[in-house]
Amino acid sequence: MDQQHLENWLNKRKERRASRTLDALLTGLKNGDRQILAESITLVESTRPEDMRLAAELVQACLPFSGKSIRVGITGVPGVGKSTFIESFGKVLVDQGLKVAVLAIDPSSSTSGGSILGDKTRMQDLSVNEQVFIRPSAAGVTLGGVARKTRESIYVCEAAGFDVILIETVGVGQSETLVHSMVDFFLLLMLAGAGDELQGIKRGIMEMADALVITKADGDNAKKAQMASREYANAMHLFPPKQSDWTAQSFTCSSYQNENIDKVWQVIESFVNQTKINGWFETHRKLQDKYWLAETLKEMILNDFFGDDDLVDELKKAEEKVFSGELNSFHAAELVYELFKNKK
Amino acid sequence: MDQQHLENWLNKRKERRASRTLDALLTGLKNGDRQILAESITLVESTRPEDMRLAAELVQACLPFSGKSIRVGITGVPGVGKSTFIESFGKVLVDQGLKVAVLAIDPSSSTSGGSILGDKTRMQDLSVNEQVFIRPSAAGVTLGGVARKTRESIYVCEAAGFDVILIETVGVGQSETLVHSMVDFFLLLMLAGAGDELQGIKRGIMEMADALVITKADGDNAKKAQMASREYANAMHLFPPKQSDWTAQSFTCSSYQNENIDKVWQVIESFVNQTKINGWFETHRKLQDKYWLAETLKEMILNDFFGDDDLVDELKKAEEKVFSGELNSFHAAELVYELFKNKK
Repeated sequence: MDQQHLENWLNKRKERRASRTLDALLTGLKNGDRQILAESITLVESTRPEDMRLAAELVQACLPFSGKSIRVGITGVPGVGKSTFIESFGKVLVDQGLKVAVLAIDPSSSTSGGSILGDKTRMQDLSVNEQVFIRPSAAGVTLGGVARKTRESIYVCEAAGFDVILIETVGVGQSETLVHSMVDFFLLLMLAGAGDELQGIKRGIMEMADALVITKADGDNAKKAQMASREYANAMHLFPPKQSDWTAQSFTCSSYQNENIDKVWQVIESFVNQTKINGWFETHRKLQDKYWLAETLKEMILNDFFGDDDLVDELKKAEEKVFSGELNSFHAAELVYELFKNKK
Repeated sequence: MDQQHLENWLNKRKERRASRTLDALLTGLKNGDRQILAESITLVESTRPEDMRLAAELVQACLPFSGKSIRVGITGVPGVGKSTFIESFGKVLVDQGLKVAVLAIDPSSSTSGGSILGDKTRMQDLSVNEQVFIRPSAAGVTLGGVARKTRESIYVCEAAGFDVILIETVGVGQSETLVHSMVDFFLLLMLAGAGDELQGIKRGIMEMADALVITKADGDNAKKAQMASREYANAMHLFPPKQSDWTAQSFTCSSYQNENIDKVWQVIESFVNQTKINGWFETHRKLQDKYWLAETLKEMILNDFFGDDDLVDELKKAEEKVFSGELNSFHAAELVYELFKNKK
């Protein structure tokens, strides 16, 4: 356990110990208390049964005060400059008087305890700004579970008065789909030089993008970035039209020279205007809500088992028996399932 | 619905109608009856409650006759030439008198109804060979569910006497991890020219690979492929040593010129020899079995809900209410969950 992890762990413990009532949490959130916001998200991320009950109540209580932010998903492969971009983009938003929350969905964090956004020094200026709240990815057993908690954190941040929620994820396929299921606008960052790789998963993610921004368009790279941007714009014209009726934009930016970063926000604003007029903005959120109903229900059903320490112990014992070869996994699953059924 | 899909659908219906007893299925499998093998896999893939019960019994009944094959995962981005490789590789195996089953895990098939391996004409020679059985990816709601069914199909194919099971998947991150959790040997196909992209997800998948094979190493491409292979070999030396103590191999092949395709099988054979001696082969399978216990259990628990048509109807009604704005998704999930609890 390195220094950063140790600190995170101690902070989490401290936050948990000072657990508050639902009313105190909600009042704190509505007053924009950052400490309480951090505690609330820790609560939402907790897997302890008693925390989960309070977390469910808190998210429900936040709902009437939520929904007013603009939710932006930001993705791109490692090396594309996501942190640097978010640092510059966040400043543009803050300069307009907007409050910005940055959350993350990082599938790798289930084992490593959080890699993206884990190190706040990556966004040094932004992380100390009063109008900004940065939160590393929740750790979790499944990507779906991590994503569900991130979605609930969005509501909590909205109740705390944040105007823009940025959800960062790395470019690995499945996590983009999950981010896409909880944001209004999906921004794909790309590097120049990958222009001829319009294939496979990249195409799938490109089809989801509302804007594709070529980063690091400065110095020797500027021309290549312009060319790549035009290529992508052409490619995107071949995609089927979006349900939103929005035409995906493609352009270049430079975080280093602070060029076109403000344009990203202008594009998002015109997307929001257009889709609020044609009704997609609301429809999209309702479709997302509908999708998450089944996911939330699954979590509740599975928690009948995984929220019971005795049953989880039995599962662990069965796992050992499977490992020793005493039982096969199918038979073991049936035996544990029988215990579960008989207990109820 | 195009011609191919229509045919698939009609075939599935026909297979289902002719449902047989457990004994008839098991006897058929052990006699190597291909029609019964196809029916058995259809049964394993079915989501109808009565089918699921019989499928569970069938998989259990197959277990004593399973485990003797070598399970090989094959992945690579679209365009790498997976089908062409499998066609050539399959012939090498068949020429040695081995029976080969080709299964697939394709996350995109949940919506499209099967894209990879969906078109058997892609492996024209192999698909008509008596010693070969090719099966497209199961369609399913979740990638995990599709993968679980594929794993069960492995046992069924093994009971039917297949010596080598090839599991194909596209290179999209999450599905590789799932394939890796059910195969003995993980083969990564790569194209030359991507040599400097040792980053992100590719690195993660490279770390899983037991062999990395650069395809299309023929004509003008041969030199580039050789160089890429050396680069990858160097890169892989920097990875932490594998639990298997196996040193991942990197080399080139050409399906077109039929070069080095036989080497792939030699490498797999020496992997199997080495890991059977040092014990990893068995340990690895037991670790996989342990992993799948929890997944199988989750499926059983969720099926308490999703196997009940009335409850699924209620979920659909609740989804409509969420979409109309009458309920929020959290409240709706709680209401449906209450119905579920009260029913038991």
